[in-house]
Amino acid sequence: MLSCRDTLIGIDVGGTKCLGVAVGSEFQSDPVKHPTPRQTGDLLDLLVTMVEQLGMGMGGRLAGLGVGLPGWVDEKGRLEFAPNLPQLVGVDVATELAQRLGLPVHAENDATCAAWGEFRAGAGLGLESVVLVTIGTGIGCGVVAGGQPYRGAHGFSGEVGHTIVDPLGPTCACGQRGCWEVFASGTALGRLVGVAARGGKARRVVELAGNDPGSVRGEHVTRAAREGDPEANAILAELARWVAVGLFNIASVLDPDAIILGGGLPEAGEVFLQPVRVALHRLWSAVATRPPIRVVPATLGERAGAIGAAYLALDGSVGA
Amino acid sequence: MLSCRDTLIGIDVGGTKCLGVAVGSEFQSDPVKHPTPRQTGDLLDLLVTMVEQLGMGMGGRLAGLGVGLPGWVDEKGRLEFAPNLPQLVGVDVATELAQRLGLPVHAENDATCAAWGEFRAGAGLGLESVVLVTIGTGIGCGVVAGGQPYRGAHGFSGEVGHTIVDPLGPTCACGQRGCWEVFASGTALGRLVGVAARGGKARRVVELAGNDPGSVRGEHVTRAAREGDPEANAILAELARWVAVGLFNIASVLDPDAIILGGGLPEAGEVFLQPVRVALHRLWSAVATRPPIRVVPATLGERAGAIGAAYLALDGSVGA
Repeated sequence: MLSCRDTLIGIDVGGTKCLGVAVGSEFQSDPVKHPTPRQTGDLLDLLVTMVEQLGMGMGGRLAGLGVGLPGWVDEKGRLEFAPNLPQLVGVDVATELAQRLGLPVHAENDATCAAWGEFRAGAGLGLESVVLVTIGTGIGCGVVAGGQPYRGAHGFSGEVGHTIVDPLGPTCACGQRGCWEVFASGTALGRLVGVAARGGKARRVVELAGNDPGSVRGEHVTRAAREGDPEANAILAELARWVAVGLFNIASVLDPDAIILGGGLPEAGEVFLQPVRVALHRLWSAVATRPPIRVVPATLGERAGAIGAAYLALDGSVGA
Repeated sequence: MLSCRDTLIGIDVGGTKCLGVAVGSEFQSDPVKHPTPRQTGDLLDLLVTMVEQLGMGMGGRLAGLGVGLPGWVDEKGRLEFAPNLPQLVGVDVATELAQRLGLPVHAENDATCAAWGEFRAGAGLGLESVVLVTIGTGIGCGVVAGGQPYRGAHGFSGEVGHTIVDPLGPTCACGQRGCWEVFASGTALGRLVGVAARGGKARRVVELAGNDPGSVRGEHVTRAAREGDPEANAILAELARWVAVGLFNIASVLDPDAIILGGGLPEAGEVFLQPVRVALHRLWSAVATRPPIRVVPATLGERAGAIGAAYLALDGSVGA
């Protein structure tokens, strides 16, 4: 249990930035961000400095540090594989930081941290089993099952971006055909807009992007859709149908209380969530005896990973 | 803990037969089978009689009864939906039997029971997280995660037969398009053989079925394949590719220690398991950093559900 005077620190270490928060029983600090240093030593120094800064002035006791890492974290908290953070691969971050800070430190995969953050302090509060699916350039996913972070046997649970939804479909960057990510990510949205633009459609979307089809981002599509542009809404509905297929498959395996959708598009709100719910409802009607799974937007935004990491310093089974 | 003199009874109640076993710390009885009576009262009477028969002569104490049911079992052990066992829908089987027998009784979905059986006494012994996938007319699945039966938030985990592997594919009996079951079940095998037979192929398979393409069963295909018939092997390889897609998707969500394959085709052994492993290996190579998941055959056969139900009488969280 977190005493009312204890503070936990969570830092989400990404390939480009480190985002830290301090979490107490009744508060969360504003996030603190720094660019991620390229050198291992500099990065570890930065993390130590961030903990000291975040802890300063909080009063009470610093009870622990949680670190979210973008890659495969083994059961001892060592980062084994991380294409976007090679400077920490093989480094025992938790033990290293625990020695320098004199604190218990828990290191965990960033998607698991984000799911735990939403579960403990966001959209999953009060539920037992949730899946956080993050739709960005690719698709990320973290799983909380029966009130516990669920890592799987090897730390690879929730690797849903490359689940196959069309084995004869287009080739993914991974070399496989028909991965969900090919159809349902931000990248897929860009492709749908490109196809529409080349066909003389999606004019309002392209206009919002400064008349450059190559500059279209998700926010241009959601803004045009909110204005009532039928072509933007058609593009979102097409994307939503593919998003729903993957969500339906995940829900069929895990049967969670809720699916929490994070990332830019879901955070645009009902303009995207509503077509996802409609498409999911259509799939669900074929298995009508099953209770439908709620789809709710994430509420912690980019802080989810850091907040979850902080709580895992308390809840996680691995201390240092 | 099961004392060395205690006996547990497990009964797998199916739409056509009831299969019971007695399980002790060092033995399992031979299975006892009876046709499933149509009337609720007769069925409950049969279950009481089976418990008495199975317990008789075992010596020691009857410590509990587990009942596997073919449908949606809620968290209180009540069967809420069961197209193949309407006579027990809405009946509080556990409480009813507990009162008549003076024993703790646990009722559970049959697929969860079978997975628990393989985990406790079969192919999953010594592992932490396993998925049992049963390939029969349709596809069944039960999940054990982190050493616990995993039911999901509403008792619908592992409903993988209708996960979607081709949203524009052929229509399934459920009304949806491209369900895994359409491509990867025993029914799908029958269709593949039918197509081959109409094209003048699969002659050896059809010959083994008495020269009647409509009578072909899985065992005819696996027997011809074992004899080295290239057309039978091609049919199994095609089926295996679809089986592998669904297994890959399940493993991507759950990351289990092993996938246990049950049902007629997997029990035919390496002639089917080997092409599944080859197809799965090909998919896995696209995500080479993840440790591959072992695929092993179930070892308890038709007794898995009853054995798992017996252990759940001890391990399950709901007593009566």
